[in-house]
Amino acid sequence: MRMILFCLLTLSALPMHADTAPVRARDLGIPFDGIPGPLNAITDVAGVTVGHETIIRDLPDNRAVRTGVTAVLPRGRNSLALNVYAGWSLLNGNGEMTGTTWVEEGGFLEGPVMITNTHSVGAVHEGVIQWRVAQGGADDTGYYWSNPVVGETWDGHLNDINGLHVRPAHAAAALDKASSGAVAEGSVGGGTGMTCFDFKCGIGTASRVTDVNASSYTVGVLVQANFGSREELRIGGIPVGRQFSGDLIYSRIDPGAQMHSSLIVIVATDAPLLPYQLKRIARRVSLAMGVTGATGHNGSGDIFIAFSTANDEAARGLPDATIHSVPNGSMNPLFEATVHATEEAIINALVAGRDMTGDLGHYVRAIDHEKLQKILRQHGRLVEK
Amino acid sequence: MRMILFCLLTLSALPMHADTAPVRARDLGIPFDGIPGPLNAITDVAGVTVGHETIIRDLPDNRAVRTGVTAVLPRGRNSLALNVYAGWSLLNGNGEMTGTTWVEEGGFLEGPVMITNTHSVGAVHEGVIQWRVAQGGADDTGYYWSNPVVGETWDGHLNDINGLHVRPAHAAAALDKASSGAVAEGSVGGGTGMTCFDFKCGIGTASRVTDVNASSYTVGVLVQANFGSREELRIGGIPVGRQFSGDLIYSRIDPGAQMHSSLIVIVATDAPLLPYQLKRIARRVSLAMGVTGATGHNGSGDIFIAFSTANDEAARGLPDATIHSVPNGSMNPLFEATVHATEEAIINALVAGRDMTGDLGHYVRAIDHEKLQKILRQHGRLVEK
Amino acid sequence: MRMILFCLLTLSALPMHADTAPVRARDLGIPFDGIPGPLNAITDVAGVTVGHETIIRDLPDNRAVRTGVTAVLPRGRNSLALNVYAGWSLLNGNGEMTGTTWVEEGGFLEGPVMITNTHSVGAVHEGVIQWRVAQGGADDTGYYWSNPVVGETWDGHLNDINGLHVRPAHAAAALDKASSGAVAEGSVGGGTGMTCFDFKCGIGTASRVTDVNASSYTVGVLVQANFGSREELRIGGIPVGRQFSGDLIYSRIDPGAQMHSSLIVIVATDAPLLPYQLKRIARRVSLAMGVTGATGHNGSGDIFIAFSTANDEAARGLPDATIHSVPNGSMNPLFEATVHATEEAIINALVAGRDMTGDLGHYVRAIDHEKLQKILRQHGRLVEK
Amino acid sequence: MRMILFCLLTLSALPMHADTAPVRARDLGIPFDGIPGPLNAITDVAGVTVGHETIIRDLPDNRAVRTGVTAVLPRGRNSLALNVYAGWSLLNGNGEMTGTTWVEEGGFLEGPVMITNTHSVGAVHEGVIQWRVAQGGADDTGYYWSNPVVGETWDGHLNDINGLHVRPAHAAAALDKASSGAVAEGSVGGGTGMTCFDFKCGIGTASRVTDVNASSYTVGVLVQANFGSREELRIGGIPVGRQFSGDLIYSRIDPGAQMHSSLIVIVATDAPLLPYQLKRIARRVSLAMGVTGATGHNGSGDIFIAFSTANDEAARGLPDATIHSVPNGSMNPLFEATVHATEEAIINALVAGRDMTGDLGHYVRAIDHEKLQKILRQHGRLVEK
Repeated sequence: MRMILFCLLTLSALPMHADTAPVRARDLGIPFDGIPGPLNAITDVAGVTVGHETIIRDLPDNRAVRTGVTAVLPRGRNSLALNVYAGWSLLNGNGEMTGTTWVEEGGFLEGPVMITNTHSVGAVHEGVIQWRVAQGGADDTGYYWSNPVVGETWDGHLNDINGLHVRPAHAAAALDKASSGAVAEGSVGGGTGMTCFDFKCGIGTASRVTDVNASSYTVGVLVQANFGSREELRIGGIPVGRQFSGDLIYSRIDPGAQMHSSLIVIVATDAPLLPYQLKRIARRVSLAMGVTGATGHNGSGDIFIAFSTANDEAARGLPDATIHSVPNGSMNPLFEATVHATEEAIINALVAGRDMTGDLGHYVRAIDHEKLQKILRQHGRLVEK
Repeated sequence: MRMILFCLLTLSALPMHADTAPVRARDLGIPFDGIPGPLNAITDVAGVTVGHETIIRDLPDNRAVRTGVTAVLPRGRNSLALNVYAGWSLLNGNGEMTGTTWVEEGGFLEGPVMITNTHSVGAVHEGVIQWRVAQGGADDTGYYWSNPVVGETWDGHLNDINGLHVRPAHAAAALDKASSGAVAEGSVGGGTGMTCFDFKCGIGTASRVTDVNASSYTVGVLVQANFGSREELRIGGIPVGRQFSGDLIYSRIDPGAQMHSSLIVIVATDAPLLPYQLKRIARRVSLAMGVTGATGHNGSGDIFIAFSTANDEAARGLPDATIHSVPNGSMNPLFEATVHATEEAIINALVAGRDMTGDLGHYVRAIDHEKLQKILRQHGRLVEK
Repeated sequence: MRMILFCLLTLSALPMHADTAPVRARDLGIPFDGIPGPLNAITDVAGVTVGHETIIRDLPDNRAVRTGVTAVLPRGRNSLALNVYAGWSLLNGNGEMTGTTWVEEGGFLEGPVMITNTHSVGAVHEGVIQWRVAQGGADDTGYYWSNPVVGETWDGHLNDINGLHVRPAHAAAALDKASSGAVAEGSVGGGTGMTCFDFKCGIGTASRVTDVNASSYTVGVLVQANFGSREELRIGGIPVGRQFSGDLIYSRIDPGAQMHSSLIVIVATDAPLLPYQLKRIARRVSLAMGVTGATGHNGSGDIFIAFSTANDEAARGLPDATIHSVPNGSMNPLFEATVHATEEAIINALVAGRDMTGDLGHYVRAIDHEKLQKILRQHGRLVEK
Repeated sequence: MRMILFCLLTLSALPMHADTAPVRARDLGIPFDGIPGPLNAITDVAGVTVGHETIIRDLPDNRAVRTGVTAVLPRGRNSLALNVYAGWSLLNGNGEMTGTTWVEEGGFLEGPVMITNTHSVGAVHEGVIQWRVAQGGADDTGYYWSNPVVGETWDGHLNDINGLHVRPAHAAAALDKASSGAVAEGSVGGGTGMTCFDFKCGIGTASRVTDVNASSYTVGVLVQANFGSREELRIGGIPVGRQFSGDLIYSRIDPGAQMHSSLIVIVATDAPLLPYQLKRIARRVSLAMGVTGATGHNGSGDIFIAFSTANDEAARGLPDATIHSVPNGSMNPLFEATVHATEEAIINALVAGRDMTGDLGHYVRAIDHEKLQKILRQHGRLVEK
């Protein structure tokens, strides 16, 4: 039976509930604060493109590939030629995001942000360099130089992670596919084999529009969510996770073992912010983790990067470039937007999850939408349509 | 004349429910996770003592003093002779905690942690040095040397902060008074003039007891809470703050102005943790801020320090000292305890607030306990007794 | 005999070689790289003012006061109204510089940088707040708020440090005296009782002028030097310190004891640099320490702050402010200028030292200029006039 | 003629002066401080092994491969099973060292430190994971998890860096070859195509033996040196670099262009140090850079990691492990050893350089030993044998 299911997956590479349109958290009536942009996605920030390369394949001996790569390009195809100011932060550093040392030192993100599985950081790193040499021009020293930003979370429960199935070409494919518009969520790209709060999870996104000094700015967030334990999960402030304990079907090898769970968050904005201000933005992501009930496990690599698509003159590296910066005293709406969009992006990743069987037959169930709605309704926390 | 005024104050400046014993958040039925220690206070960590010096005085011309100093001694009177391993972190750095540079570099907290108002950091800094010279012996160089840890939050709304009413002797008094046992909360010590979520607030404390590798450890938290806006406030996950908007009586000079609000958090534990592990503990405080709805305002100085009373051999500085450390992989229960105790300590500070009139007649109302209970009950979030 | 010396000091409060004009390192032929500004001082950066308040007084029972306060104002009297972008770094954090947490978070230095002795940080902190309330206007919230930056090094060998002789009024005096023009070096202001490499030392300054993209910029440095052991000292690359071992007259209580030595460095520039770039500048100070032979003692608080007087529009906090930034790729001349000016400022502080007798009769000798010249000449490293 | 030379290189893969025995800096009479261990190499720290995989190959169209991988294993073959405490720091972050986020968070280095060229970070990252899966056992969760530490410097002048000639198998080869004993220097392993101060450079190593509280400890350093400009170079304190300007034959595409130069430094010690203390050690590396005249170029990735082979009990992750730590107050000899050994390791890398022709016919000359000796002798700075 499962084998048939696998064949289906292999052929279609579609989510298991392919007949239903994508459901997002606020479609279910889950309450959130703030005003989302038109797509409620990171791509609401003009210029940002997202590409997913999803790798779902079954192997002999009950092994399975459930992984991929997600690429976020701050300025789409122009991202190699024109850097963006950036900053990063973390809650718990049991993970990797390459390139952050130069982001911190130089204040710029120079190219895309990639997300994949833990053991494929190297392949994606090489893939970005190959792609840059193929796509981008040499820098003004006459050389190609590249220090790619590659984040990861661990999908070794559902994915044959040691098989190193992500190759450099997959990174290039994700980069080539990247587009504006709606962003697929759940088990796609880097999120393919990920779980959060012991449910199937993966990629999620959301956005907020907010006014700062009479200008309207957008904050967009994309997460690869792979963190949290079932008991911790709070949605709409209600500790719903523990009400799902009867459904705990996560076939851990050792229930008491520590999972290598993690959360990668990318925050984009068109508000003109300097590198130190983007670091401040990135640091607010922890607050949204707190809202979801997370307590910051030792095994988690919770790493956050924020960039601003404004100040393209600065990115050109000209001595007389004119730069703008939202005054510190006006940043509160952007902080709020970051916290609120991150919370929703995480819950979107969870809601977009679909039951998945993966490597060695490991099976992870998605959260039951109807049961979730019922619990929230009981607590007067469901937004009824 | 002043004496008469004092009497009036003594009679009136009492908590509104003066006839009842101090009320704490869980007494009201507010739900929290984890198991508190006997006192549900930072003093549940053996050896930790707390002292408050509260300064409430009315001045001519409608000026008023509503401020003070709180002292936390990691090893009580032995704190000068025997350092503790420590680490610190922050969410937003618009504030001060002196001494953190040496805590970070040297790994030890060498003496007490003091909390006062923003403009009294200098006086308390000097007071700690005077007290050390009076109390402690010279170090092994034959000299007295001191780099005190003094945190602050801003009470200039209720307190004549520029009057610099905290003197070095007040710091010494707080240190001398420090004791184990129950800890007064609300408008005491450094918390005297503080507000949070636009309600009267101040000092709060809580603790958790947890097992790590079959050993039982305690995590105790003390906060000086002066952060957050009314709309943000969530209690038990419910956004209760916005339901209190009709009660908004905070007489700000300019309602749109940014307040210099902040949160100082001290986390104590008897679990043997190394400096880097205590930094990890301190970083989890942000998660608890997130649970309360905070989004990390620009004007907030949210600074956190954590210390461990274990490893007193290391503190003696002997070459052959035996040190212990909870393995990283066993730290999750301590992270949970930190998040849960911090959340409760903040809400305790809020619940302990009592209406206060202060400088220039500024008036800040405490949160209405009964209304709060009613809201939580409506959402099925009140723990009924 | 020593009493007579004290009387002389008390009467004249002049350096012992009062009949000679101030001698600076390059006057002696010590070789340095780069081109200094007209004053070879931090005040070569337009707008920067420096004020010293020196406290030299003899007390009964062989006690003596040899201390003071130095104030550096980035924009002179306009420093309170108009902040400067800033960044900070350190080599070893066994010391204090208050206010750095907000400098890091907010990217601005809001007022002066003060330097004093370790135990007077509190008094100077309070003094700056008093001075601000007296001088500066309220901020746009209608409140006075202040988070002063106060650095320190330890002068307890020559100065009765526990006597707390620096009072808030001394800080105000240093601020009031601050002026442009030549800067007194050696045993003045905060440097009064300081020693470096076991010689008398104190305040030193230097500057460099350099071209960046066809614009000429100045980098000015002021140090309070109180670090290093005799054997380590290298001047002009020659390990001269060990050749002075016969002159070692430093009356330490315990020769093997660790001194609480430190180095505070302030780097000013008119080059338009953003906060992250100023942090990079501050980090280069360590390289200059290396040139002098320092190995970074445990007991040293080596803390560095850098600010830029450009971008006054940004400092006004207006949403449409135009900001400029030297491109990262053009910063090398500024890095060089920082290293070279810091090296010279440290050696200037050393050369400006004069023999001093202080607290409990402790005596510290200045470095012998002629002997130093002789050593350098032997090694072909003296710049002959 | 050059073609013949290339053939020779391809056949023998030997340095050009293959007939001479390796020459080290102190063999030439260059003066250094401190007492080296028996090998004057990082391998003087018991258990540390080093392996180089050198890739020298000529390609059609005048392209050439001059690159490689160097592996440092803290505990030799036992490095995967038994972590070491570690800390890291940097001077300028224009570079990459993967894995540092977890080193900082968790306090341990979990496996080898690898060094390669900038564009081969990905291949080496993957190579370490493959090697771990092949060599090491699963961790106690039943999974293989790996977050390799891979540093890099840029060899694109002599090496066809975009050809991605380092493959995962080369990383495994370097790991498999790693041994104790003498360490090859110069153009080997990751250092094959590197230059420093515009001379041929590469790998260098040195060590110091020092007493701390009557125990003897070793500090060993290995560098991959690829930083600095000719004019800056100081050896033995003498600015020798500018005396070699007539020999400047470095065929840069654009002499004014910024090179992507860098310095990776690995510090090993058997002294029992905790993670925060190892970070302190790593931070001292900057001082040694200063001694060599470096001013910290924008294009440099100067990243340093330090580890201690002591405390193997802690590495086992047992709750009752006994840990030791050198008291902070006793660390000065270790700081000195770090600075002195790093200085010598850098100069060893320079002295070990041999003229090399590489990619596109680019030619880099080694420093002329005799001329260097002559200059030092003129300044009385040569240690005559």
